[in-house]
Amino acid sequence: MTNTGSGHFFEDFNVGQVLRHSTPRTLTAGDASLYMGLFGSRFAVQSSEIFARAIGYPRAPIDDLLVFHLIFGKTVPDVSLNAIANLGYANCRFLAPVFAGDTLTATSEVIGLKENSSHKTGIVYVRSHGFNQDNVEVLDYVRWVMVRKRDEAAAAPQEHVPELPAAVDGGALGSACPRIGVSAYDFELAGSARRFGDYAIGEKIDHVDGVTVEEAEAQIATRLYQNTARIHFNQYAAAQERFGRRLIYGGHVISLARGLSFNGLANAFHIAGINGGRHVAPLFAGATVFAWTEVLTKGALQGRDDVGAMRLRTIATEDKPCQDFPWKAGDDYDPAVRLELDYWVLIPR
Amino acid sequence: MTNTGSGHFFEDFNVGQVLRHSTPRTLTAGDASLYMGLFGSRFAVQSSEIFARAIGYPRAPIDDLLVFHLIFGKTVPDVSLNAIANLGYANCRFLAPVFAGDTLTATSEVIGLKENSSHKTGIVYVRSHGFNQDNVEVLDYVRWVMVRKRDEAAAAPQEHVPELPAAVDGGALGSACPRIGVSAYDFELAGSARRFGDYAIGEKIDHVDGVTVEEAEAQIATRLYQNTARIHFNQYAAAQERFGRRLIYGGHVISLARGLSFNGLANAFHIAGINGGRHVAPLFAGATVFAWTEVLTKGALQGRDDVGAMRLRTIATEDKPCQDFPWKAGDDYDPAVRLELDYWVLIPR
Amino acid sequence: MTNTGSGHFFEDFNVGQVLRHSTPRTLTAGDASLYMGLFGSRFAVQSSEIFARAIGYPRAPIDDLLVFHLIFGKTVPDVSLNAIANLGYANCRFLAPVFAGDTLTATSEVIGLKENSSHKTGIVYVRSHGFNQDNVEVLDYVRWVMVRKRDEAAAAPQEHVPELPAAVDGGALGSACPRIGVSAYDFELAGSARRFGDYAIGEKIDHVDGVTVEEAEAQIATRLYQNTARIHFNQYAAAQERFGRRLIYGGHVISLARGLSFNGLANAFHIAGINGGRHVAPLFAGATVFAWTEVLTKGALQGRDDVGAMRLRTIATEDKPCQDFPWKAGDDYDPAVRLELDYWVLIPR
Repeated sequence: MTNTGSGHFFEDFNVGQVLRHSTPRTLTAGDASLYMGLFGSRFAVQSSEIFARAIGYPRAPIDDLLVFHLIFGKTVPDVSLNAIANLGYANCRFLAPVFAGDTLTATSEVIGLKENSSHKTGIVYVRSHGFNQDNVEVLDYVRWVMVRKRDEAAAAPQEHVPELPAAVDGGALGSACPRIGVSAYDFELAGSARRFGDYAIGEKIDHVDGVTVEEAEAQIATRLYQNTARIHFNQYAAAQERFGRRLIYGGHVISLARGLSFNGLANAFHIAGINGGRHVAPLFAGATVFAWTEVLTKGALQGRDDVGAMRLRTIATEDKPCQDFPWKAGDDYDPAVRLELDYWVLIPR
Repeated sequence: MTNTGSGHFFEDFNVGQVLRHSTPRTLTAGDASLYMGLFGSRFAVQSSEIFARAIGYPRAPIDDLLVFHLIFGKTVPDVSLNAIANLGYANCRFLAPVFAGDTLTATSEVIGLKENSSHKTGIVYVRSHGFNQDNVEVLDYVRWVMVRKRDEAAAAPQEHVPELPAAVDGGALGSACPRIGVSAYDFELAGSARRFGDYAIGEKIDHVDGVTVEEAEAQIATRLYQNTARIHFNQYAAAQERFGRRLIYGGHVISLARGLSFNGLANAFHIAGINGGRHVAPLFAGATVFAWTEVLTKGALQGRDDVGAMRLRTIATEDKPCQDFPWKAGDDYDPAVRLELDYWVLIPR
Repeated sequence: MTNTGSGHFFEDFNVGQVLRHSTPRTLTAGDASLYMGLFGSRFAVQSSEIFARAIGYPRAPIDDLLVFHLIFGKTVPDVSLNAIANLGYANCRFLAPVFAGDTLTATSEVIGLKENSSHKTGIVYVRSHGFNQDNVEVLDYVRWVMVRKRDEAAAAPQEHVPELPAAVDGGALGSACPRIGVSAYDFELAGSARRFGDYAIGEKIDHVDGVTVEEAEAQIATRLYQNTARIHFNQYAAAQERFGRRLIYGGHVISLARGLSFNGLANAFHIAGINGGRHVAPLFAGATVFAWTEVLTKGALQGRDDVGAMRLRTIATEDKPCQDFPWKAGDDYDPAVRLELDYWVLIPR
């Protein structure tokens, strides 16, 4: 699509429309380093070429979430430049590993539209796809956003709300993770002896540490993804809106929580899919993010005995340590909760 | 020159003097990534190895302005450590592409000197040159700075004010851009269908977005260029001077404006020359930078029909969106204007 | 050791215990770039592949202190997660050069333990070792930290205080620096004509510049090293403790001082060893760091006439320029002093 900087409004979308996003991007070791400096990831597979090769990767893969954020960023100019809120993610699958040197592009298909009763906004559902330079699909996911109408009087597109699975089929996941040699996986070097079999369904894990968000960090990260959503960068405009401040990109909180989750999940080295994500409340610079995780289910991968899949729910909070596992109080979220993320990780058996 | 950290004063310079600057620097993919994180550039040629190669580059080139800032940085210890103000740039030509792995060095020739009537300061004009490891010149430009005298009573050097062209000859530019295969240039992927023929002389383009400057970002960028100018880093000293704050490096504003200019100029992938630049007023952290551009002239490159040259004037403002194209009110600049940059870009025909 | 995120307490250690640290890490050009952006190093050997190769390195080496911080970071989860204070370093030797692409791991041996009279804390002495992917030792050093007891009533381990040398034997250093071709060392390009013979014992050098610390910079640097010490990242917790603020990682000050020391020590391109280091007082964001250095002794390296060793004492201050060389007033440190570092550098003869 042509990027004039003004983006699309709700009435510009129609179901079945395919958006080919601009800005192809070659990922390098430099991106991996900067991502490390911003989130401090410690998972051994992404941190060490030697470790990754020992277990069967051709090279150390790029962090899954860096790939996610990059593909997400490409969709922003066409999908969510005029979004009021990023409502959710679903059915996200990591399909092939990404390595330094790979060049990523993205497309999205509009799979649903629903005007809001105010006639001022509507919800746009897209399925986005990321590809590498060999046109191998590396990622796909659904997200839905509330987008402004340019003109309240404009006719609304035909309403269509897609059916979305509550969760990705865990057993079908894993194509982004080669079969690993578990005997070569050095658990001590990876930071924990805990394997698939050592986690119980229902187990709750406090990730202990907290990390305070700085405006400069969030801006650098969000630009690294070439995400141009205005609310993350423009304090002049933000000062005149509801919150008065730049909003931290929701994906920033996801990466912070993933980084913290190493404390207790050190061997859960690969995110294979994301079942659903919800930004319960916005986050602003100065907040200290904490996180905890519950093991929801565990499952086998089809035809594989090297790794198992664990379905996790990670909750990230603001300014509230998680030793008491804050989540919901009745139907409402604990007021400290900022993120709820439901996803599948792979972990050696 | 020997770098003792005290720099040169006005009376230390003489016309014809050649300064060979210290600190050779190998640029890497890491520098490109950090530059991306700091400025969020989206021009496809620099962002994607695949895109760059498809149109005829041997590899994705390093962003032109990163090269400019790096060469500029090398000149600071010898030219402008005791500068009060960076008065202007002129006659800047990008002469050869720079790639990750190249090692850059710089020299400057003193081409003019003029003491100010106060006898406290003088203006130093230098022509600076950047070279790669094969001694190929990659960049040259003139700048002039107001430099303190060490001793007011010192005899002033012979006054000589160089004649500078109002603009670089656009037709002679382009040696840093290989002949490109326009049929392989994917305009949709690059983010815009607009080519050379689609822009009108006199056309004004609002770049729409605004970006707020953080102190940490500006310091990281300026250090990445190994620019040691004190006023950008030392809050203790700045607190005792006129503004009371660290000054943002002028080149930071140029890079922010270039990043914003993607909105409307997505295919203007290469800066071929800079005719003149003026930092109309200083910028400090916390400011939100906006920008707009006017197409001043258009021209052919000698012997080339793949790309055309557009001469642009980009205005960057502080805390003032640019839909009304703020520039001058009579002889004076609009008080929101911070940068006026007059330059040549290349764009596919 | 298994990294559960809770770390070890004083009573968990015993003399002779060997800790094999987690999180192997491949260093890349991206790490070097980010380190450059954070500290602005200008030493020609690390800055330029061409310069490094000309004098005999196979490639430009990674900055010595980046290696130090990375190995240090690996030791934190096992050694100092529950530390109250990092008391000192000693007997640090850089044993082999590290290049982009190398993968580092670390171990530590507990060499001393001493409970404090309060029974609430004790001092843990460890000798830490860094290795590359070929199991070549690249670094070793001793540090001692004050660590909390989990339980005041717990029996203290047998007291043992190791004897530590006041200084590393300078003559035995240098294995991380290949024999260099001094005739190929371009002193002008390196930024100074001063060689080993040009420095006098007792000479004091003001490094002139000052640099203000930003919270985001310190967090990015400390995460780049995968250093998980809580006090550097968690403002929520810090607000409830003594200083009320996040503490800047001590190594950040060392790297800032090293960067500043280029002014006057431009050819001291390699840190060969650290005799001792003391963080005299904590540093917080907003401080402007200045530094000065005294040449303590000079010495020959065994069997080498290409480079000489200079033992230096570098003092870093907060908000106090160093033209008067602030250090001690009687037995007490000048209140502006934050760091005292005693180390060996190599410099061409």
